[in-house]
Amino acid sequence: MSPKVTETYKRQKVEELLVAAEKVFAVKGYYEATMDDLVNEVSMSKGSIYHYFSSKEEVYHAMLERLVTKSLEMLEERLLSKSSATEKLAHLFEGYKEWDWQDRMKLLRATNQLEHWINGSKASSNERYVAHAKKFEDFLTPMIELGIQEGEFDESISPTLAAKYFWVMMDGVFLHAAVLRQSFPSKEMIEFAQHMFMNYLQRGERNGDHV
Amino acid sequence: MSPKVTETYKRQKVEELLVAAEKVFAVKGYYEATMDDLVNEVSMSKGSIYHYFSSKEEVYHAMLERLVTKSLEMLEERLLSKSSATEKLAHLFEGYKEWDWQDRMKLLRATNQLEHWINGSKASSNERYVAHAKKFEDFLTPMIELGIQEGEFDESISPTLAAKYFWVMMDGVFLHAAVLRQSFPSKEMIEFAQHMFMNYLQRGERNGDHV
Repeated sequence: MSPKVTETYKRQKVEELLVAAEKVFAVKGYYEATMDDLVNEVSMSKGSIYHYFSSKEEVYHAMLERLVTKSLEMLEERLLSKSSATEKLAHLFEGYKEWDWQDRMKLLRATNQLEHWINGSKASSNERYVAHAKKFEDFLTPMIELGIQEGEFDESISPTLAAKYFWVMMDGVFLHAAVLRQSFPSKEMIEFAQHMFMNYLQRGERNGDHV
Repeated sequence: MSPKVTETYKRQKVEELLVAAEKVFAVKGYYEATMDDLVNEVSMSKGSIYHYFSSKEEVYHAMLERLVTKSLEMLEERLLSKSSATEKLAHLFEGYKEWDWQDRMKLLRATNQLEHWINGSKASSNERYVAHAKKFEDFLTPMIELGIQEGEFDESISPTLAAKYFWVMMDGVFLHAAVLRQSFPSKEMIEFAQHMFMNYLQRGERNGDHV
């Protein structure tokens, strides 16, 4: 009698595959990684892998989907206990400062997502990337809206632009940190970004005389 | 009698090659572009190309070196007529706002440099990237120092952190613009970044009450 393949079993196998894929793609990069590298990382045959995914590209997209969902859930959970928008954002920045920026493997995993984004810029359709970016934007926008409603942030601030900007800036930090490594002062940079961002949210253009 | 290969001739050929390389790499991406693609773009044989460069990688690095030098010279020239640090920075931001963000080819060229940076994060040595980043940093640092000396900017600002931050932010904007295309509001984002950055340089932490 062959074992009954339950939904739970399938989900576990897919999970195992995607965790392994994260490592393989981080170390080798999207272009150089192969399905064989994946086989070497998991307790499954190539045939079983093809049972779940028909190509490296499909594995990649599923892996990315999982990462985006997981990251946002983790962030959401971290911030649950914080009530004000200012505290939530401060806690978010703290999380990035506490991140281990010297851990090559962690940085490579993060960079791999940037690499994929870059490759996405050449793809004929970019809907998938737009959807991912939207999820990150939607995570922050209500937080900034709340801050404006509660009078913590200046009402001249656009919550969607501020939310988009946060991720633009963080991706910039990850990019430079990954490439420049020890010579890039990641924590000081996030601290600088935090002060600048929070100041602007709180004061807007008030008393500003910039050109 | 064989033609005398002058230094000028060599420089012209290398220049022609690197201009073509820019196009080839932008369209195909670093991984998929081949030396044959390059041959198809120039009036030179593969043998002559190998006379100047021994590999695709070498062509790429020479192309990047040329781009970095050219970009910084162009920026330098644009800003010559501006005397104050505030004006120089405002002019710099204006240049990025006026950039044609809908031009796919221009965006792909820019993205190609980001792709290369990302690939660089996996390279065993990153000295080349550190040197490039240093050039961009060194372009802005004296400008911000000048602003502090002249009393335009707050003296609590770190000129080197602010300079690094500027490029982190711009690379983030290019990254998102290239991937998200029409759905990314590049000009509004640069406008937002400009207000935030200039405000912070001018006011520092003064009157700030952020957490």
